[in-house]
Amino acid sequence: MTRSSGSALKRVEAVRRGLERVDAAAAVFGLSSNLRYLTGFTDEPGERLLCLIVGREAESTFVVPELYADEVRARASGIATRVWSDGENPAALLSDVAGGLANRTGRILIDDTLWTTFALTVQNAFPDRGFGLVSEVTGELRMRKDEDEIGAMKRAGEIADRAYFAVTSRTVTGLSEIELAGRLEAEMLAAGAEGVAFQTLVASGPNSALPHHRAGPRRIEAGDIVILDFGCRVGGYCSDVSRTVVCGEANPELLKVHEAVRRAHAAARDAARIGVTAEAVDRAARDVLGEEGYGDRFVHRTGHGIGLDVHEPPYIVEGNERRLEQGMTFSIEPGTYFPGRFGVRIEDVVAVTEEGTLAMTRAPHELRCVA
Amino acid sequence: MTRSSGSALKRVEAVRRGLERVDAAAAVFGLSSNLRYLTGFTDEPGERLLCLIVGREAESTFVVPELYADEVRARASGIATRVWSDGENPAALLSDVAGGLANRTGRILIDDTLWTTFALTVQNAFPDRGFGLVSEVTGELRMRKDEDEIGAMKRAGEIADRAYFAVTSRTVTGLSEIELAGRLEAEMLAAGAEGVAFQTLVASGPNSALPHHRAGPRRIEAGDIVILDFGCRVGGYCSDVSRTVVCGEANPELLKVHEAVRRAHAAARDAARIGVTAEAVDRAARDVLGEEGYGDRFVHRTGHGIGLDVHEPPYIVEGNERRLEQGMTFSIEPGTYFPGRFGVRIEDVVAVTEEGTLAMTRAPHELRCVA
Repeated sequence: MTRSSGSALKRVEAVRRGLERVDAAAAVFGLSSNLRYLTGFTDEPGERLLCLIVGREAESTFVVPELYADEVRARASGIATRVWSDGENPAALLSDVAGGLANRTGRILIDDTLWTTFALTVQNAFPDRGFGLVSEVTGELRMRKDEDEIGAMKRAGEIADRAYFAVTSRTVTGLSEIELAGRLEAEMLAAGAEGVAFQTLVASGPNSALPHHRAGPRRIEAGDIVILDFGCRVGGYCSDVSRTVVCGEANPELLKVHEAVRRAHAAARDAARIGVTAEAVDRAARDVLGEEGYGDRFVHRTGHGIGLDVHEPPYIVEGNERRLEQGMTFSIEPGTYFPGRFGVRIEDVVAVTEEGTLAMTRAPHELRCVA
Repeated sequence: MTRSSGSALKRVEAVRRGLERVDAAAAVFGLSSNLRYLTGFTDEPGERLLCLIVGREAESTFVVPELYADEVRARASGIATRVWSDGENPAALLSDVAGGLANRTGRILIDDTLWTTFALTVQNAFPDRGFGLVSEVTGELRMRKDEDEIGAMKRAGEIADRAYFAVTSRTVTGLSEIELAGRLEAEMLAAGAEGVAFQTLVASGPNSALPHHRAGPRRIEAGDIVILDFGCRVGGYCSDVSRTVVCGEANPELLKVHEAVRRAHAAARDAARIGVTAEAVDRAARDVLGEEGYGDRFVHRTGHGIGLDVHEPPYIVEGNERRLEQGMTFSIEPGTYFPGRFGVRIEDVVAVTEEGTLAMTRAPHELRCVA
């Protein structure tokens, strides 16, 4: 997924045209998935100010710490760089770049995930301006994935599938949630993932009723229901999959709930087609769980878009009237949760195709009994 | 490192007193290391608005998405919660909480790493206010670590040491940088780390001259110099260590440079004492490399504070006149880089003690030859 500087310039130019469309003067990008999308360059956000300023009148400049300078120049050879060293104050440098922009009154768009410490610096560098978010421009650019992007997501899904089978084929009972999460992550790294997409969730026993429980010291016991929710990155692109397993034999109540969630997932998957709204997909899953009497136990949306970010548009949620298009990628993950007792969730990421949808993970949806 | 709600309330109260000291009306925290420090509650930042508003006149309120509500209530039982559901707009809820604060004119401090998308929401919720960063208050609270915090950092250091020995005892030549990084990360997870502290850096051959090169597809060759820079988390607290190894035998130039960096590290370590300024520690390392003629090859500061964040105050950098105090923890990591050829870096995290400093990692500083 390394982008050549030619490709970088092309995407930067698309941002510039977007600024005209939404009537803004400039966009300021930090170390983010947007910057990776535009230039191929990325790193974890840190305390050093690094930003790319794209002006509507075609001036683009990187403000960059000295120790990133060579990498940034190699990635984005057509873009000017202004370099600062440790011990210098980069705010003055940013103000200088800001003062040089041709458009002196229009709105400034700031990278959605830029830290506030830098957002305040940007606001000071552009006094008396209105501010918005770069997603006004990048959201549309990134929402439809091309073949290369879907290829990376498929590979990330295959690695997640492999880790799931490897880990659930061994004994799980007796491990702590953290240990089981560590096994899943180690399997994905060993299989060639460049990293995990997010901190792995292993929710066992009553913890499975907490949809955002991560992984804790609790030891998994015989009879426990366990939700595994994990993913990895390939070329920056994420996978994200959830399966619910049981240690030993399933009781009738679990079988009934699991089957309802499985049917809700299938209904949402069937509903997802070019031209259908995001909220209609959410509704399809919600209707099935509502009919089963679990409507108020499904406490989250049906899914989220995914790509360079684990969560990005389109969100599969009530109120989102956005119509699905070919190349959109999102999760389908209905769940049912009984506080203090247990929960069930089944999740795959799918891509919208001409024919319907293609799933990035293939592990069966049937309830898996593990040792 | 699970904090009881009693401890949470104590630290929230310390923030409230800090607001009086810096003359601000309220502080708004997001999903961040600050929130973890205050309440024990944390998660990766995401697109759902979750924040804790601490008012100077003692009103504290969590604005929290429904699917986090149970966890937040369990962590911070003494703090009011206002819950919103997927499909609702949380900005109105935040404005309502903001409108209820007793202090109606003072400055609002925003969490340093809060995403701009939420910072703009906060700014809208508090019209006609000045804005600053919560680090004005939390920086001082977090800079001196207590025994529990240093205990977690020691454990994170021990795990990193173990991973280093495990990985460098096996053949490294022929692996890709990504594969070697994966081995280091898998070893740390298997040894009980709750996650990596940052994406592991493996910089081989000419890549070792790039101080922030992560890990790429390049295969490690016989004769390569390789910088490993990695760390993990225990109870949220980070380790961070760098060592430079050579695949096979070292040539005289490498030996000379490595020895200079080793001496620079030792000089900085010797300089680090209670009452000494941060910049004096930086200077001690810089003087050694300057005498050797490598002054302009040491392109970054000597170190950074570390704790719940990988990089936090105090920064060991020219211009930082902050005096060291007992319990401060930071990295010492001088390096020397020859663009296009190779680089060397040696890093340990140390804690300032009554007697001097204590290192969190113990792997020897002598150049290690690997297979």
